[in-house]
Amino acid sequence: MNIIELLKWRYATKKMNGQKVPQEKVDYILEAARYAPSSAGLQPYEIIVISNKELLEKVKPIANNQSQITDASHLLVFAAWDGLTEARINKVFDHTTSERGLPSNAFDDYKTRIHSMFSTKTAEEQVQYAARQSYISLGAALLAAAEQQVDATPMEGFNPAALDELLGLKEKGLRSIALLPLGYRDTAKDWLVNQKKVRKPKEEFIIEMA
Amino acid sequence: MNIIELLKWRYATKKMNGQKVPQEKVDYILEAARYAPSSAGLQPYEIIVISNKELLEKVKPIANNQSQITDASHLLVFAAWDGLTEARINKVFDHTTSERGLPSNAFDDYKTRIHSMFSTKTAEEQVQYAARQSYISLGAALLAAAEQQVDATPMEGFNPAALDELLGLKEKGLRSIALLPLGYRDTAKDWLVNQKKVRKPKEEFIIEMA
Repeated sequence: MNIIELLKWRYATKKMNGQKVPQEKVDYILEAARYAPSSAGLQPYEIIVISNKELLEKVKPIANNQSQITDASHLLVFAAWDGLTEARINKVFDHTTSERGLPSNAFDDYKTRIHSMFSTKTAEEQVQYAARQSYISLGAALLAAAEQQVDATPMEGFNPAALDELLGLKEKGLRSIALLPLGYRDTAKDWLVNQKKVRKPKEEFIIEMA
Repeated sequence: MNIIELLKWRYATKKMNGQKVPQEKVDYILEAARYAPSSAGLQPYEIIVISNKELLEKVKPIANNQSQITDASHLLVFAAWDGLTEARINKVFDHTTSERGLPSNAFDDYKTRIHSMFSTKTAEEQVQYAARQSYISLGAALLAAAEQQVDATPMEGFNPAALDELLGLKEKGLRSIALLPLGYRDTAKDWLVNQKKVRKPKEEFIIEMA
């Protein structure tokens, strides 16, 4: 299937059947998420992968008791950095210069510009910036899941503060942003599976300035 | 190429060669962007497509004089709704019920929940919410471009207020969020084309809670 076919195949699965997703498929989806681009290459987010059923039972009430949380095989939690500190940014560029065999000062001017950009942003703006980047990765993960014929339901309907508390994310400098349960559709019990996929008409989505 | 191969093929092209991207490829990329999912299916963003060279010359200084703006074939501007009004939300659900042949009140409870959720958010929070959704679409567009062997450079380095002014976006209830020039790499002149693609190591990206 091409990208558009994958986007049409996937849907926000409402009922999953509990079947396990093979580890190599989960790994593939995570690798797509990892290779997604981000502003300045900072990748200011991480992914928590939960397959422990007891832990998922504790997540469920934090996520409006949505059944996919526990009927999924794995739950991905996209979590953004809680701030763009100099140490975090420097680490990214140190890794890049090392991987590319460049002098360690190769990005010094660029780093200075980035540090000064973030220094003008509030803590909340920094989280918003990081969260936004994580949605490119979420998009890549969704498409990779579809390519593996794995269902995935992006979710924002949960209590981030409570989830951060449960998973100890604050201590890791992270804030939960979006959930992505991975599993398989329960075709017989999912009210959405046979509904027509609806998107805004092209003429309300595209503005041509030719 | 599979999704991971596409992610590895693409890169933030620094120098484009001015070659035109065929219209059917641009249409394909836009269609992928349109079919990307969004929270509650609201698609609270639109895409401005600019191919007019004079207009692109005016965009360039607003985007730090980055050469891709004018060496690109088409420039996509991802623009978020400036607010999640009841009218906008209702229109989305009216379209969905109509397309699915459902009674017009089918989503009334859900709409009420959404209205009440947005009524607690500030205008700025609403834009942030919409902007975030647009990055899923940006991710889909990037992958669709790669699939078409079209280069694309996601850009945040521009002055949104100045661009909104130039394009008259305020009057359309939109705020520019990200740019995506589409074109072709100039292999001889692009310093980045042969540099190793670097991402955070898996162990710094994934946290397993098994």
